[in-house]
Amino acid sequence: MRASRFLFATLRETPNDAEVISHQLMLRAGMIRKLASGLYTWLPLGVRVLNKVEAIIREEMNRSGSLEVLMPVTQPAALWQESGRYVEYGPELLRFNDRHHNPFVLGPTHEEVISDLARLELKSYKQLPINFYQIQTKFRDEVRPRFGVMRSREFVMKDAYSFHIDQASLQETYDVMYETYSRIFTRLGLDFRAVQADTGSIGGSGSHEFHVLASSGEDDVIFSTESDYAANIEKAEAILVGERAAPSQALQIVATPEQKTIADVSAFLGTAAEQSVKAILVQGNNDADGNTTVVALFLRGDHELNEIKAEKHPAIASPLTFATEQQLQQLALPAGFVGPQGLVEKGITVIVDRAASVLSDFVAGANQVDHHATGVNWERDANYTEVYDLRNVVEGDPSPDGHGTLQIKRGIEVGHIFQLGTKYSEALACKVLGEDGKPSTMLMGCYGIGVTRVVAAAIEQNYDDKGILWPQGIAPFEVAIVPMNAHKSPRSLQAAEELYAELQAAGFDVLLDDRNERPGVKFADLELVGIPHRIVIGEKGLDAGTFEYKARTDAESSNLDKSALLARLQQSRVK
Amino acid sequence: MRASRFLFATLRETPNDAEVISHQLMLRAGMIRKLASGLYTWLPLGVRVLNKVEAIIREEMNRSGSLEVLMPVTQPAALWQESGRYVEYGPELLRFNDRHHNPFVLGPTHEEVISDLARLELKSYKQLPINFYQIQTKFRDEVRPRFGVMRSREFVMKDAYSFHIDQASLQETYDVMYETYSRIFTRLGLDFRAVQADTGSIGGSGSHEFHVLASSGEDDVIFSTESDYAANIEKAEAILVGERAAPSQALQIVATPEQKTIADVSAFLGTAAEQSVKAILVQGNNDADGNTTVVALFLRGDHELNEIKAEKHPAIASPLTFATEQQLQQLALPAGFVGPQGLVEKGITVIVDRAASVLSDFVAGANQVDHHATGVNWERDANYTEVYDLRNVVEGDPSPDGHGTLQIKRGIEVGHIFQLGTKYSEALACKVLGEDGKPSTMLMGCYGIGVTRVVAAAIEQNYDDKGILWPQGIAPFEVAIVPMNAHKSPRSLQAAEELYAELQAAGFDVLLDDRNERPGVKFADLELVGIPHRIVIGEKGLDAGTFEYKARTDAESSNLDKSALLARLQQSRVK
Repeated sequence: MRASRFLFATLRETPNDAEVISHQLMLRAGMIRKLASGLYTWLPLGVRVLNKVEAIIREEMNRSGSLEVLMPVTQPAALWQESGRYVEYGPELLRFNDRHHNPFVLGPTHEEVISDLARLELKSYKQLPINFYQIQTKFRDEVRPRFGVMRSREFVMKDAYSFHIDQASLQETYDVMYETYSRIFTRLGLDFRAVQADTGSIGGSGSHEFHVLASSGEDDVIFSTESDYAANIEKAEAILVGERAAPSQALQIVATPEQKTIADVSAFLGTAAEQSVKAILVQGNNDADGNTTVVALFLRGDHELNEIKAEKHPAIASPLTFATEQQLQQLALPAGFVGPQGLVEKGITVIVDRAASVLSDFVAGANQVDHHATGVNWERDANYTEVYDLRNVVEGDPSPDGHGTLQIKRGIEVGHIFQLGTKYSEALACKVLGEDGKPSTMLMGCYGIGVTRVVAAAIEQNYDDKGILWPQGIAPFEVAIVPMNAHKSPRSLQAAEELYAELQAAGFDVLLDDRNERPGVKFADLELVGIPHRIVIGEKGLDAGTFEYKARTDAESSNLDKSALLARLQQSRVK
Repeated sequence: MRASRFLFATLRETPNDAEVISHQLMLRAGMIRKLASGLYTWLPLGVRVLNKVEAIIREEMNRSGSLEVLMPVTQPAALWQESGRYVEYGPELLRFNDRHHNPFVLGPTHEEVISDLARLELKSYKQLPINFYQIQTKFRDEVRPRFGVMRSREFVMKDAYSFHIDQASLQETYDVMYETYSRIFTRLGLDFRAVQADTGSIGGSGSHEFHVLASSGEDDVIFSTESDYAANIEKAEAILVGERAAPSQALQIVATPEQKTIADVSAFLGTAAEQSVKAILVQGNNDADGNTTVVALFLRGDHELNEIKAEKHPAIASPLTFATEQQLQQLALPAGFVGPQGLVEKGITVIVDRAASVLSDFVAGANQVDHHATGVNWERDANYTEVYDLRNVVEGDPSPDGHGTLQIKRGIEVGHIFQLGTKYSEALACKVLGEDGKPSTMLMGCYGIGVTRVVAAAIEQNYDDKGILWPQGIAPFEVAIVPMNAHKSPRSLQAAEELYAELQAAGFDVLLDDRNERPGVKFADLELVGIPHRIVIGEKGLDAGTFEYKARTDAESSNLDKSALLARLQQSRVK
């Protein structure tokens, strides 16, 4: 591509409304422009990246044996009513009527449509397993779209849906998708982690998220220093460590006036936060008579409740809801000063986090306003109903697989694979005849990649103060050639044209920067846009038989002769 | 691809609701399935074709220097209000509100969005010309979607929009697009014609439609037997031929009771329809005092009025509207018996079609109920205001360029290139600084291809009673290999596997039909699906060292040795 025939739409200033770096750089590099809240036009530079990402995904999905389909963006509301999600999905599901007043939705996802297709087209177990994918525009009416294409309303997704006669087959395809996703993100040149994720209310046995690691990521990604173990924060298990020491202190009630937080109390008492427990009072499931109940959760003072884990406990209401003031009053529990002492005796279910359960001589609320208890010990001073994993892991926790300790990094979720089981196939009656000749409800898996999101995530992971640092496989151009004084030096221009032709013939995606601009402007643009290799051609180099080469990540340029230059470029593709 | 891992969704019966052959065959071959009225899911077989069509279009658009972008499907209504089309476009424009009650539309086309982009990003004539394209999903809320993907509500289009500083530049890009479209449809393997089209109310100097010729086409495509001249029926000019002979008959009034049509009257009088004129009375533009007027059009009895041509006459109201009964009564004109005699004298504008203007001694209405006049002659018996091209051309008319005569075939419009001039750039204030430093409104061109429609049109042009006859470049697979008794003959299967690997290595898109089905079922499927080449491998052929080869269009198969087989396949790609 000749730069003079391309649209360079670089901006020197950072637009005001762009909060995250990828949004800023995509605007500044001229990859996208905002059309309306959460709606972006992809400019030529952005489309080049998007197409490369799509091509890698399509190639690997085809290789995996998945079959490409294309489903409509507009979907009849009736299918969503059938699955129950017409109500469940909430206002992110954009609904409208067509000219004949028939209700439709703009598809945020396609489980319903593919299930409808599967129940019509799949008749026998012999057609299974089968895995359909598409790369397609989706719409989610975010209440507050932001971060550019990272959380836009319209976006491109690769979504896939597999159908199976049994769990073993689902697991097999799931494993193939895990490998396929790993290959995809590797080929995209991204530092990523596949982490175990919670399957939520669907249940089912398997779910992994694929996160691109980036300090700006919204999610915590947990992984072991010494093994393959990786999980998201919702899922990562905090195992029981150590044993409880015998009590050595007597229980004492201490006045702690105006000490509200764990930090306040610890400072006031001169103890460490990890030597205290905090109470979290939540709604339990109703009792046999239909009365509301309260469940008391106790965690170490320095630990954080993991709501997803808590919700899974059969005694606790889901979604997790805090106990009301009225409930606390009825139980005579003073908010902010609740301790475990005597709660079980009041008929309250007391669930203690594993780490809190091995404390001795700890600080807790005294169940009395403005007072705490010190020297509290389980069993001697306070009973509990059960010990349970209730907290978020923290860095340094032992890995649940017994190998190494846990590290935490920030990640951006770009892919998700999920064993849906029969959630949709049950609701939409997706059955095939099994080997025994009887109708059998198919099992489903679903597998998504946020294609437009991947582009933003790649930038969040790869940038410096000058602009983007594209992984070569998805760079808008791999190499830029800059002839110096092209409009005055026919010799530079001719040498540039020759190299341009040669590199293109060698299969490189090359930009010849033939714009009538100062070198400084060109260099700044090329760095902002993030082209991995830059070759400057000038009279001096031509005299010496060298080219001025600089990788985007190099601090300085080096003068290379043609064979060294070509070797350097070829090498960059190998890694 | 192994057929056992593909989704064959062929149907033996023709679905009831499919009226046209492409719709029937796309359903029967398992290319598409209906989700809702005018909404189709593309199955794996259909997507393979669609992707090939898209790839050819993308490659040629890139080659033309057009830059790919991707605009949102959802568009803010405000832009459509600005262009005036929010009202103009009618109910085919699907409108909805987002969760914040902001009005949006689902884009049927993107002139507004690209104009908005252009006015923000293009600042100087130096950035021009520039041509943006996208391949993207569009939505048009057809009142009665039909013919499958030929007239669906959601469809894929390649749309392009170019921007220019002057008409010369617009014409240059327009010509490039004409060549590009010609290359695209040639590479798609389709028999097509580029025809001049009317530019309608936009005016502007250029518009061509690209039609795939097919007897089922909805449009008439006109072209010369001996030159490049081609136009659609609205545009094709009927030139003046011959000269008027001197009168030889006297005017006579003849009673023609109950003779209503031209055919009736001609039969009754024993004259040919082409020796008569028919009157069509339409609304003229209001006169200087604001009163309605009537314009009388006269055409030869065997010719058809071309409304588009008539509307262009400055005296005639647009859109074309027939005169009311009341107007005819006021002028004492008896409907069905109006002749040109005395009309000009009544103050009526009389416009005569060129062919009607060279008649002598013709039949016309007598301006008297149940009576006609014979031996009518212009000037002697009837004056006229003007001679004008008012009719549709017919086969055998001379070509307007003076070379050959006109032929008429049926066509399916699959592409359209159009010089928009300043229609949108005026409305949306798209200006750049010109060479003189002053703001200048850009000129625009737009260029569309109905991508999904191309697939249907290709089938309308290429099928037989067994199924589809794909042009090789867009066939879902180029070659099918069928091992006979694969499940019993390891030798056939092994030979098939070897050939499969060999042809894939040679770059062919091959289907290995390893399904456990009878040969008859496989052959019927492969013919229905339209794979251009079929190779059957059996024990007998293996003994003789031959393969049973049959092109989809061959009546009989032939036994070829490997080198002859490979030569045949290679050759098929060249043409």
